[in-house]
Amino acid sequence: MHPAQLPPEGRPGSVAVGDVVTEAGAVIADVTVAFERWGRLNAERDNVILLEHALTGDAHACGPAGEDHPTPGWWNGMIGSGRALDTDRYCIICTNVIGGCRGTTGPGSPHPDGGAWGSRFPAISVRDTVTVERAALRALGVTRLAAVIGGSLGGARALEWSLMHPEEVDRALVLCVGARASAWQIGIQSAQIQFIESDPDWLGGDYHGTGRTPDRGLGFARRVAHLTYRGELELDDRFGAAAQPGEDPLGPMRTADRFQVESYLDHQADKLAARFDAGSYVTLTDTLNRHDIGRGRGGLNDALAASTVPTMVAGVDTDILYPFHQQEHLARNLGNCLGLRRIDSPTGHDGFLTEFDQVEDIVLEFLDAGR
Amino acid sequence: MHPAQLPPEGRPGSVAVGDVVTEAGAVIADVTVAFERWGRLNAERDNVILLEHALTGDAHACGPAGEDHPTPGWWNGMIGSGRALDTDRYCIICTNVIGGCRGTTGPGSPHPDGGAWGSRFPAISVRDTVTVERAALRALGVTRLAAVIGGSLGGARALEWSLMHPEEVDRALVLCVGARASAWQIGIQSAQIQFIESDPDWLGGDYHGTGRTPDRGLGFARRVAHLTYRGELELDDRFGAAAQPGEDPLGPMRTADRFQVESYLDHQADKLAARFDAGSYVTLTDTLNRHDIGRGRGGLNDALAASTVPTMVAGVDTDILYPFHQQEHLARNLGNCLGLRRIDSPTGHDGFLTEFDQVEDIVLEFLDAGR
Repeated sequence: MHPAQLPPEGRPGSVAVGDVVTEAGAVIADVTVAFERWGRLNAERDNVILLEHALTGDAHACGPAGEDHPTPGWWNGMIGSGRALDTDRYCIICTNVIGGCRGTTGPGSPHPDGGAWGSRFPAISVRDTVTVERAALRALGVTRLAAVIGGSLGGARALEWSLMHPEEVDRALVLCVGARASAWQIGIQSAQIQFIESDPDWLGGDYHGTGRTPDRGLGFARRVAHLTYRGELELDDRFGAAAQPGEDPLGPMRTADRFQVESYLDHQADKLAARFDAGSYVTLTDTLNRHDIGRGRGGLNDALAASTVPTMVAGVDTDILYPFHQQEHLARNLGNCLGLRRIDSPTGHDGFLTEFDQVEDIVLEFLDAGR
Repeated sequence: MHPAQLPPEGRPGSVAVGDVVTEAGAVIADVTVAFERWGRLNAERDNVILLEHALTGDAHACGPAGEDHPTPGWWNGMIGSGRALDTDRYCIICTNVIGGCRGTTGPGSPHPDGGAWGSRFPAISVRDTVTVERAALRALGVTRLAAVIGGSLGGARALEWSLMHPEEVDRALVLCVGARASAWQIGIQSAQIQFIESDPDWLGGDYHGTGRTPDRGLGFARRVAHLTYRGELELDDRFGAAAQPGEDPLGPMRTADRFQVESYLDHQADKLAARFDAGSYVTLTDTLNRHDIGRGRGGLNDALAASTVPTMVAGVDTDILYPFHQQEHLARNLGNCLGLRRIDSPTGHDGFLTEFDQVEDIVLEFLDAGR
């Protein structure tokens, strides 16, 4: 694809990458990758920053919500002329992850033999997400990245980029993730998968096109997940133990009356069910379980020590999902670490999305480092 | 009841306390309280230490598992002649909480009109648990406590004892709890209630005697709860990202094959379903949601400032359910605080059960303080 064929800035684009063979040996036929871009690809095609979104994110990193996008850009304000990710200088590309449901092939996509992929969709490792993105970038004529940046699942993807293709990545910024899934993460993530797969409307993963969707199971998963994303200090500041207006959770009998935080979590659950496919949620949650940079590389510390890409690591002090000691572990062991930065926030894991000023400073420092 | 009527040491006893009116105004008829005791009640009847168990605990604080007890004592080794809770000096009494399922009246108990209480069982506040325990102790001829000690839900009960009946409590040791349920706690606890109440075998709370039990919902709740009780450092040290022997969670397709930590959580879920009533789990989880020492007392800090009972507070540095700052808050604001102690442990919230040496030191210091 000629650069001129890139979609207009902040508009959906897509590129076909053919068949993909996963790390574990499955084949996904006819993969399409959805993406958005901001800023121009230069003549040398070496000014691309690849942005990696988190679990339920998508390629729409910047811009308002609209017809194509149920949510506003997840890093709005970070991207633009004169912004930290300066479109006067860089061409920012954000791809939707394989297994997702916002344009790139996933369990809800049409299978070549008819129907949706559903239960036929293979398991996806973090390395598979990189394989697919790289194929998409090559189809766009991009063979080198000025930087790869991501948080959470996106951070895992950025980290794998730096280890799988060090010669193609100038630098990496890895936010709010660890070197592999911890037992606690696998535990809480597998519980979420179980909620969805136990929903009678899951139908073994083949609910697409039946008119049924496992919304209850997905809602259960989201409530728990949201509590791992959000710091208890921030939630308590917002909701405390207040009752939902008009409801009385302190009456003489237990009823459906709620505390305010319950109503908030119900709302989060409903919002996700309206915008996100349960099959993608299961696939990508399993992807997080499979995150392990040490696999086939002699273990975590050998893998990190062998890293050559200049990498900056950052985390949030109150993150309970990817506790800060995991980022300390990365920074201490990476072969070419640009530094470790701590985001101070009551917000927990989601701090990489909400603490704009601190994250902006980190992005600016990261892009300036070593120039 | 004459002290001679106390049951043999470490054997189940019970005492009838008649009708109970809850804080919210419901009536529970014919309440029975189960308890165990170790050590002799002295002639002055002023050597009683009341031990308060946590959510799924029971009166069996000490002794082996056996016919009467599915689990060994939850503070084994802490109680006995020459132990921290010295039975040569103190009479240790541990009551099963109202709403529970190990002898004290709860949702699974017979209703005076027939059948089990089930959905007719009222909501229970932490204050109600104190009201019932106090009635039980008075029926045993005990009107004064040398100490009240508890962790988690037991800590909330110990704290309420010190605020509701300061003239009857010589001192209190409050472990691993806060001044009220935080929004995060209410969120994660309400999610667990929802899992159980959404199980088709819940039958609106009236499954007792039907041959059906909401084991799946209870198992979901336990998996999540267990991950709030156990520190991620400890879990990762034990399980890491290892596969369950004979299973392959990294295959090309998602299957039922598990990581080791999943098998561990499945085991925890099965164990709890075998020994604990789902109705009690819902009732007592709701009790935790209702924990708020500020209610009717002018708010948390006024309630704490007005406290006169010498109180020691302790918590675990890695507790994500009742983070250590909650114990700092208690200690800073209590009117008569004996001190704040930090248990250093990778184990998280359960540290008050697992870090025996550190907790023993705290108990000894607590009982010696001010002598």
